[in-house]
Amino acid sequence: MSKNTVQARKLNGFRDILPSLAIQKIEMLKKISETFQSFWFAPIETPHLEYADVLVWKWSDEIQKELYRFEDHWKRDVALRFDQTVPLARFTVENLRLQNISLPFKRYAIWNVFRWERAQKWRYREFTQCDFDFIWTKSLASDVEIIQVIYSTLKNIWIEKFTISLNNRKIMNWFFEYLWVLEKSEWILRIVDKIAKIWEEKVEKELIETEKISFENVKKILEFVNLKEENFSDKKEFFEKISEYKNFSEKIKNWVEELEKIYEILWKLDIPKNFYKVDFSIARGLWYYTWMVYETTLDDLPWMWSVCSGWRYDDLTKSFSNDDISWVWASIWLDRLLAALDELGLSEEKKSPAKVLIANMDEKFLWEIFKIWEKLRKNWIFTEIYPESVKLQKQFKFADKQKFEFILILWENEIKDWSFTLKNLKNGEQEGVWDFEELVRKLK
Amino acid sequence: MSKNTVQARKLNGFRDILPSLAIQKIEMLKKISETFQSFWFAPIETPHLEYADVLVWKWSDEIQKELYRFEDHWKRDVALRFDQTVPLARFTVENLRLQNISLPFKRYAIWNVFRWERAQKWRYREFTQCDFDFIWTKSLASDVEIIQVIYSTLKNIWIEKFTISLNNRKIMNWFFEYLWVLEKSEWILRIVDKIAKIWEEKVEKELIETEKISFENVKKILEFVNLKEENFSDKKEFFEKISEYKNFSEKIKNWVEELEKIYEILWKLDIPKNFYKVDFSIARGLWYYTWMVYETTLDDLPWMWSVCSGWRYDDLTKSFSNDDISWVWASIWLDRLLAALDELGLSEEKKSPAKVLIANMDEKFLWEIFKIWEKLRKNWIFTEIYPESVKLQKQFKFADKQKFEFILILWENEIKDWSFTLKNLKNGEQEGVWDFEELVRKLK
Repeated sequence: MSKNTVQARKLNGFRDILPSLAIQKIEMLKKISETFQSFWFAPIETPHLEYADVLVWKWSDEIQKELYRFEDHWKRDVALRFDQTVPLARFTVENLRLQNISLPFKRYAIWNVFRWERAQKWRYREFTQCDFDFIWTKSLASDVEIIQVIYSTLKNIWIEKFTISLNNRKIMNWFFEYLWVLEKSEWILRIVDKIAKIWEEKVEKELIETEKISFENVKKILEFVNLKEENFSDKKEFFEKISEYKNFSEKIKNWVEELEKIYEILWKLDIPKNFYKVDFSIARGLWYYTWMVYETTLDDLPWMWSVCSGWRYDDLTKSFSNDDISWVWASIWLDRLLAALDELGLSEEKKSPAKVLIANMDEKFLWEIFKIWEKLRKNWIFTEIYPESVKLQKQFKFADKQKFEFILILWENEIKDWSFTLKNLKNGEQEGVWDFEELVRKLK
Repeated sequence: MSKNTVQARKLNGFRDILPSLAIQKIEMLKKISETFQSFWFAPIETPHLEYADVLVWKWSDEIQKELYRFEDHWKRDVALRFDQTVPLARFTVENLRLQNISLPFKRYAIWNVFRWERAQKWRYREFTQCDFDFIWTKSLASDVEIIQVIYSTLKNIWIEKFTISLNNRKIMNWFFEYLWVLEKSEWILRIVDKIAKIWEEKVEKELIETEKISFENVKKILEFVNLKEENFSDKKEFFEKISEYKNFSEKIKNWVEELEKIYEILWKLDIPKNFYKVDFSIARGLWYYTWMVYETTLDDLPWMWSVCSGWRYDDLTKSFSNDDISWVWASIWLDRLLAALDELGLSEEKKSPAKVLIANMDEKFLWEIFKIWEKLRKNWIFTEIYPESVKLQKQFKFADKQKFEFILILWENEIKDWSFTLKNLKNGEQEGVWDFEELVRKLK
């Protein structure tokens, strides 16, 4: 490299998406967008850059550390969005004030977000989030709908085996209250969150030693978070077991009954029962995630992170307004999903769609080549011309490498008769074609 | 506003895109992407954030000033991309080295870019660029193709009246050389660029006084840059006029002949002749834009900026590599186009697609509502349920505001019979419907 050049390189944790993956991603985004719209979510777009105080107000230290934050040309404290939820809270309050939107409001947004995290496999510092949100709802209907949307979307992008796990965090909170450990709940949840990753004994030890919870209560907590449908022979038996918790308090009874109601609706719909299950160990650390929590895992990659998460919040807009606006949020982690499909060998090699390469023999025949190209394109035959009139051998090599099916050659004497030489690159056969209609028939 | 809240606000020059515009934008992007793919451009994605030296090397001060540049968590000098061309140059050199791509390479990319410019009407600090590029081509074919792609894309997104102006800047350069003013050409071009905006006399004065060009040569320069097809009765007469310049030098002769060849091909294609014209006044200030230059204006908004620009470069990758890679770039300024359509009153009010609102009468009937909703959706009838079981009057008000066509009501006694009350919100008529098939017939 000459000292007059700059090294062509990317920042660590960022990446280029090459055509084969980009084509797959675009097709998926189209399907996701269509599915969201079919459930009547409306698209919106918010800026990548916001006032930093809009993004960080009341969020945990963890998020502050992950923020790409800087001063703009006028010394304003600004930051790249780390998610689309906080910008949506800002959007909602601001646009309600401006009377641009009215409640209830259902929106989706598919954009990139930025987090300064340790770059690792399946984790990038810039990634695409496909968010959909119900704003201003306390109804069970939105909980059922969220499961429907997740199910329909993943099915529509050709994912066949996945499980949507759900939990009502309120049950957990009230259970902790009953055990007189509510004020420790955030820390308990953080520890419990590790169950999938570390041994239960270690969690037990940590709860007793760090949080000073009695051995008896730790046992109860762990029994509770281990309540997973998959450990029961059927959903009925599972609900019989969790019904026991109804006796603990009136509030827990209400929340368990809500879960039963959600199931009652789900069972009537055309979603096979094995696609969703209750799992009391799903907690998520952050305190502002309340009520229902959803995580979706791929059955063939159970150790991978969730590919679709969702939560119901009570108070997200409280940063900006005193109005109480509750909502439900969910997001498909598209980049992770694409990586997973690749890992599973399920990502089809999407080739570029061109089928026929027209050899470029001489610049003086360019207009004939263009005319044929235009006609072929109008007949929906994906065609490309080689951009330079170089040696035919080089053009053949290119066609081969790019996996074209045919190469079309116009020799000088053929041009006068509007005839062609067509070579099939799969079997190597070459033939003369005497008119355009015949050409179209052979290429279709 | 309470002192505990943060004001919900955006940065100046940034904006929210509300559903009605976002739906329009998504539909346009889909069409644009399809058109690019039909011409065999492959999509790629590069990071929003790059090393600053990758972006700024050899670019003018103007761009340095417009860059959102800052230090990341590890004190690396980084910046948000201000266009997609420089990142593509980095992408090309890096991925050729990694053998991820091969030449020739045709790619498109539709992403947002960031520029610290004076925020004004039709100009935002974050905006969407729809770029398509041919990499590694010196052929006239790519010049013809660029015009085809611009024409097809704008037609596909329902733009009916526009003009693609083209110029070969080499002709201009060699003409300046002939007049012994080549070393001043960059400044002459900057001044000439203002012709559309200020009076010709002022340009004349500036050229004579600031650039010390003789009165005679200034006359020649201005005569030259005023060569516009629109000032001639037809294209033939125009080419007769510019043929005179062939006598100036062998090089100018070659470039004029290239322009003639491009026209020779274009005339044979199905693009009406009034959609493109040669205009020698199109120059663009930046020195690295060489060869062919394209600008597309909307006929009904001639004073507006170009909605689609293109250039042929000789040496863009020279920042990163000593290889000589020439290419052609073009970009549709989508946000400007959307603003223009809105200005012209051509932007359709795209309503949300929901047609039927199912009233939410009582949470205990939710499963029936969901069952009907699922069935209607499977029959491709866009349906929505009201998220809360509130007063019917409130739900009617919502349906009206959101322009639903029908409201479907399930009274308690009707649920048992699987029958419905359907109200047409346009004419206010209300009727009982006795089975599901009848309901589908009435709604289709």
